[in-house]
Amino acid sequence: MHFTSEQRLDDGVLAREFTLGEIPGTLWTTPESAAPTPLILIGHNGGLHRREPRLVARARHSAANGYAVAAIDAPGHGDRPRSAADEQTRADLRRAMRAGEPVDELFESFIGPLVEKTVPEWRTTLDALLSLPEIGGPVGYSGWTAVGIRLAAVEPRIAAAGFFAGGYVPRAQREEARQVTIPLLLLLQWDDEGNPRQRALDLFDAFGSKQKTLHANTGGHAGTPWFEVEDGNRFFDRHLK
Amino acid sequence: MHFTSEQRLDDGVLAREFTLGEIPGTLWTTPESAAPTPLILIGHNGGLHRREPRLVARARHSAANGYAVAAIDAPGHGDRPRSAADEQTRADLRRAMRAGEPVDELFESFIGPLVEKTVPEWRTTLDALLSLPEIGGPVGYSGWTAVGIRLAAVEPRIAAAGFFAGGYVPRAQREEARQVTIPLLLLLQWDDEGNPRQRALDLFDAFGSKQKTLHANTGGHAGTPWFEVEDGNRFFDRHLK
Repeated sequence: MHFTSEQRLDDGVLAREFTLGEIPGTLWTTPESAAPTPLILIGHNGGLHRREPRLVARARHSAANGYAVAAIDAPGHGDRPRSAADEQTRADLRRAMRAGEPVDELFESFIGPLVEKTVPEWRTTLDALLSLPEIGGPVGYSGWTAVGIRLAAVEPRIAAAGFFAGGYVPRAQREEARQVTIPLLLLLQWDDEGNPRQRALDLFDAFGSKQKTLHANTGGHAGTPWFEVEDGNRFFDRHLK
Repeated sequence: MHFTSEQRLDDGVLAREFTLGEIPGTLWTTPESAAPTPLILIGHNGGLHRREPRLVARARHSAANGYAVAAIDAPGHGDRPRSAADEQTRADLRRAMRAGEPVDELFESFIGPLVEKTVPEWRTTLDALLSLPEIGGPVGYSGWTAVGIRLAAVEPRIAAAGFFAGGYVPRAQREEARQVTIPLLLLLQWDDEGNPRQRALDLFDAFGSKQKTLHANTGGHAGTPWFEVEDGNRFFDRHLK
């Protein structure tokens, strides 16, 4: 893990860019913390960048609340190279979701393999992060549902997870949901145009966890109210602190 | 409104018993508060008493958080007289719900009229409470869903409401849900044996409010985790403070 730059933000949070082999990432910490802190991994999908403002705002809020927070760009995201074919598939997927057309097969053939590639990268990143003296664990995961399900199913160091949306999740992860037994918070938008509500509710029902909480708010995919960021932190406080 | 007794509790909350005509109630306040405080009305159903420990714990938590909190016993509840016929109907209702038998007609004929009687009592109580110098408003409502829907639909002084369960609600209130437009938090138990989940989700969908939030947790009717009391207070803090 090589830190390539660092920036002290106005809320006192230290944002450090890193690379780990071909994986680019960001680590947000509060250097003032005396003891090794718990860690939250933030996953993002949809071709977005880990510097997307809403993601950064969440990361800074959690860091200011006493966590080390890390995000990596999955293959085809953010700083990673993108193939023309992948760009075309993403455009097709977005168009079909907007039009309310069936996207299961497109989703399966494109997102399924992406989950398979991304989860081992998160595990490698987790090894590197936990070797830093300022990070002690335990570890939470927040964000992209499909990657989080696989990660929670195979990675015993993940102690609690908050998932977002969950209307479209590859078949493999819908199956794996039953194997997830850590405390969960599933956050969904009630009117999410691209995430069928009933599927998200069925996914919530399927998780094997004894402690699971569902939060839903009115509005579309990007309309999650800010108080859910605070609720998410309180969820992690209950399980990681 | 006649205060009949008062007790200072160990958390500094003052609990005052009152009667208003034939309505018995309790008012919890923190006498230290300098300014007139916002008010939360707690409704309870199922023949329970307003001194039921979980209700009192919620009330004290909200009072300690800066609210005046009031509960009244609806007809047939707590300190109110109960008829043998009503007791029999409640027993039949509980037995049928436990057995998973249809309870709609029993519910309609028994709970429907009870809602009709209880809502005017809450409005009378609200008039009396808002005339006290230590209570300023705005006003929130928390608890029994059917009464809360009618109250929110007819009483413009209710500014925000938190409802619990909502699997069984009389037809009249299922219809009135569309007229409710204040900010809402619906809290349900995912495995509530006596409250059909899909009906509660349909009710959430039906509310006319632009700002509505759903919280669901695993477990049965009485298994709501304590952190939902804190989440409920934060919901009221957003809308009443």
